[in-house]
Amino acid sequence: MAQRPSIPKGTRDFNPEQVAKRNYIFNTIKQSFETFGFQPIETPSFENSETLMGKYGDEGDRLIFKILNSGDFYKSLVMDDSVTIYGLERFNTCLQKALNGNYKTIKESLEVELRKGYENDSYYSKVLNFILGIKEINFGNVLPVEAEEKDKIKSRILFRYARLILFDSKTHIKKISEKALRYDLTVPFARYVVQHQNEIEFPFKRYQIQPVWRADRPQKGRFREFYQCDADVVGSKSLWQEVEFVQLYDDVFDKLGLDGVTIKINNRKILSGIAEVIGARDKLIDFTVALDKLDKIGEEKVKEEMLAKGISEEGISKLQPLFNLSGSFENQIESLKAILSSSQEGKQGIEELEFISNAITNLELQTATLQLDVTLARGLNYYTGAIFEVSAPEGVDMGSIGGGGRYDDLTGIFGLKDVSGIGISFGLDRIYLVLKELNLFPETVTKNIEVLFTNFGSKEALYSLKAIKTLRKQNIAAELYPDNAKMKKQMNYANKRNIPFVVLVGEKELNSKVYTLKNMKSGEQFQLSLDELISHLK
Amino acid sequence: MAQRPSIPKGTRDFNPEQVAKRNYIFNTIKQSFETFGFQPIETPSFENSETLMGKYGDEGDRLIFKILNSGDFYKSLVMDDSVTIYGLERFNTCLQKALNGNYKTIKESLEVELRKGYENDSYYSKVLNFILGIKEINFGNVLPVEAEEKDKIKSRILFRYARLILFDSKTHIKKISEKALRYDLTVPFARYVVQHQNEIEFPFKRYQIQPVWRADRPQKGRFREFYQCDADVVGSKSLWQEVEFVQLYDDVFDKLGLDGVTIKINNRKILSGIAEVIGARDKLIDFTVALDKLDKIGEEKVKEEMLAKGISEEGISKLQPLFNLSGSFENQIESLKAILSSSQEGKQGIEELEFISNAITNLELQTATLQLDVTLARGLNYYTGAIFEVSAPEGVDMGSIGGGGRYDDLTGIFGLKDVSGIGISFGLDRIYLVLKELNLFPETVTKNIEVLFTNFGSKEALYSLKAIKTLRKQNIAAELYPDNAKMKKQMNYANKRNIPFVVLVGEKELNSKVYTLKNMKSGEQFQLSLDELISHLK
Repeated sequence: MAQRPSIPKGTRDFNPEQVAKRNYIFNTIKQSFETFGFQPIETPSFENSETLMGKYGDEGDRLIFKILNSGDFYKSLVMDDSVTIYGLERFNTCLQKALNGNYKTIKESLEVELRKGYENDSYYSKVLNFILGIKEINFGNVLPVEAEEKDKIKSRILFRYARLILFDSKTHIKKISEKALRYDLTVPFARYVVQHQNEIEFPFKRYQIQPVWRADRPQKGRFREFYQCDADVVGSKSLWQEVEFVQLYDDVFDKLGLDGVTIKINNRKILSGIAEVIGARDKLIDFTVALDKLDKIGEEKVKEEMLAKGISEEGISKLQPLFNLSGSFENQIESLKAILSSSQEGKQGIEELEFISNAITNLELQTATLQLDVTLARGLNYYTGAIFEVSAPEGVDMGSIGGGGRYDDLTGIFGLKDVSGIGISFGLDRIYLVLKELNLFPETVTKNIEVLFTNFGSKEALYSLKAIKTLRKQNIAAELYPDNAKMKKQMNYANKRNIPFVVLVGEKELNSKVYTLKNMKSGEQFQLSLDELISHLK
Repeated sequence: MAQRPSIPKGTRDFNPEQVAKRNYIFNTIKQSFETFGFQPIETPSFENSETLMGKYGDEGDRLIFKILNSGDFYKSLVMDDSVTIYGLERFNTCLQKALNGNYKTIKESLEVELRKGYENDSYYSKVLNFILGIKEINFGNVLPVEAEEKDKIKSRILFRYARLILFDSKTHIKKISEKALRYDLTVPFARYVVQHQNEIEFPFKRYQIQPVWRADRPQKGRFREFYQCDADVVGSKSLWQEVEFVQLYDDVFDKLGLDGVTIKINNRKILSGIAEVIGARDKLIDFTVALDKLDKIGEEKVKEEMLAKGISEEGISKLQPLFNLSGSFENQIESLKAILSSSQEGKQGIEELEFISNAITNLELQTATLQLDVTLARGLNYYTGAIFEVSAPEGVDMGSIGGGGRYDDLTGIFGLKDVSGIGISFGLDRIYLVLKELNLFPETVTKNIEVLFTNFGSKEALYSLKAIKTLRKQNIAAELYPDNAKMKKQMNYANKRNIPFVVLVGEKELNSKVYTLKNMKSGEQFQLSLDELISHLK
């Protein structure tokens, strides 16, 4: 391989410093998860395709990475007559008529007969243009008369069309691939709950921190492989769980030293209520999708989009109080009560938000702020109650760093009805960038070894290894430079690796049974016994 | 979905207890890795196909999981004329001759003309049998005369053959799949080193604990997704590293409480030397593959296999002293010196083993035993020096629980020559089974939360959550039962989750500002203030 090797786009290698910093975030999140009573589970990296397909909306299936079946993955396609018979027989008939008909040129014969055979305009064009791409045939030529000439043209055209019809990725996917990589952790979790329902105590509180894979177009901050950090509870409708999740977000960011995050909260019932009140009940998704973009595109463009989706001008004008909604949680709630006075569902949503807000006020958050945001929808349409989104502190240019919500029927897709759930997620990669920007990674995070022992010969090396063995037993990370190299090279290595101490061992140290410890920062050197060395390094 | 959902064969879900136990092993291994100076890296789950293909021997590629290209994965195949032209034109010629020839039956016509067209016996049979499988054609019939009838038969046969030739998985793989899941951690590590060589300080000590995937046939103890725990050093030929790795194995198993493991060691040069001495130098692989099976199939069968592979009887008889090799490391070394006296390479191997053995004797292992095993080869043919394998303690029926060795030129496959490496691996799943069998998981490993607070109403719940907040700040894992359910149900939940303490909070407790703590094992109850509660639980 002459060229430098590389990794697929959208993926990353992590060096030791990056691993250490990522683990710092993971471990902080885990600590909070565990004090809040969540227990970890792990699911396989690939699930059966039918578990994942169709669960992520129209665009979802396209973005899932499929795993090719092992061995001869074409086996079932080769043996499947239905794959060819219908499609090619029909085409063959058109082709026969074209070649045996009364036409001036080959091209004309195809145009006419294919037109009769394929009514669908775009498919007809697709087939015709594909056939006309055959370089070996001059389609402007007069239709040949001799059987052998006709047969040659016919087979070339048939072979080309065979490729078009046989290589149909959309229909073949199911035959050549039966497994796919996880797209998120929520669907696998629902599958896990239903599969293991007899071994689970409800309410079931689980956390899951594992990678997921999406075939998105990679860009800044968007990767094809990334971790999700989720905590969910299934089996209870209690609003105390919404309260706890707000506390959980607060606890994690407090531990990370990330002050000033905003936890935005909304409720699907409020969005439904608003849609109801403006007469757009049947356009709930279009409505919420447009509304959710308020922060990004502004009020005017949001209204334009709603108009374009068929929401009435009258209805949109009723939204004005919402666009003007501001002030404290309580003030906004009062305004909402007025706006949604005629919607039962809307009022239910308000009640739920009030409960959560009052509890949080009583319990007090440590560092985050809870804020009502009635435009928050977060795209996914399986939320049925509370909806959360966490914003980075002011001044930090980052999208959301966490989100979640209540979903009343997720396990229903796998056959277990009536199990309400609620969960939140932490955006690991974005949190990493925020901590980096605000310089919040503790210095100790990237420390590797404490002390390097020099190597100036076999006897010295053995002597050093005995000391290293004792140091390691005291949990002091230590190692021996493996080769008997020049002093300069060994010191250079210690510096490049940011090792704070070096122990020099030469004949003198061997004979006196001491160790010369050098502080790499200050340059100071000490002659120490083994015990003194241990105390010094601890 | 009427049926219970499931996961692909060879994969596993892990419940909280299993995750906790696996993490106990991972964390113990990591601790040792870090005190020994290894730092973690992480590589992507999927690599470019060319990085992995061809690196694992003849059978390897078959067992690698391939990822289907995103979008229209057939795109390049549809447009590629070469995929059809040659193969089908040739077949078409045979078919024309068959249908227009002077044959009695359709079958006879095909047999004769295809035979002329395809000299390769097995391919001819494959094609013929495949064609004869067309149900719609009665091949015993007389060859038709009418053009339309001939054409119908011809197109059916062409369409069928098109499938056979177009659905060629071996050649298509490269066009529809460009990425594949990691098969191990060693090749990705070599790729990482070459790709990032300018950012790495050599010698580079890295550990990597990540899952890998293999399309093996699943059986007991063999999974399609499993973790590898590897530690490697690249950039030095120093034998002190071999010594350190023996110490590292010893340290991990000592920490796990797994006493009495045997670390078997051999050296590729010794195997080469033996092969040289018995005149089987050119059959080194066959020789070592057979020899490595000694433990499994016994001396007689090993000799039979060697004979079958073309190793002379005379040579095999020279092996007798090896089969009889026993006793201490030193004794075996002495015997080997005699046997390999005429082999330079063999003597080099002996020197290396002596160095390691002497150092280990001086340094003393804590719990493991180092043993020489000259039959150890471990299948993989990239070891060039030391070869390790770790056996479970006696009495435990398990295969190896770890292995590794020295490889002088791994990064060479990616363009970076002359970088010597050595590494070891821990068999996580087998170690798990051994610890389980010997009851060596500490009880604390699977503990989840310390205390559950009951929920008998809103006021009580809020009061409890305030206390829970304080407990959590003290790192005491606590939670509130989310619903206001009957006492029995809440107590039952606590028992099913093995929660050691429950705090009862009713009106009485609210008014007196106390908490009634119940010890779930003993049944004792105490009325405590918040501070007393904290002390009691810590």
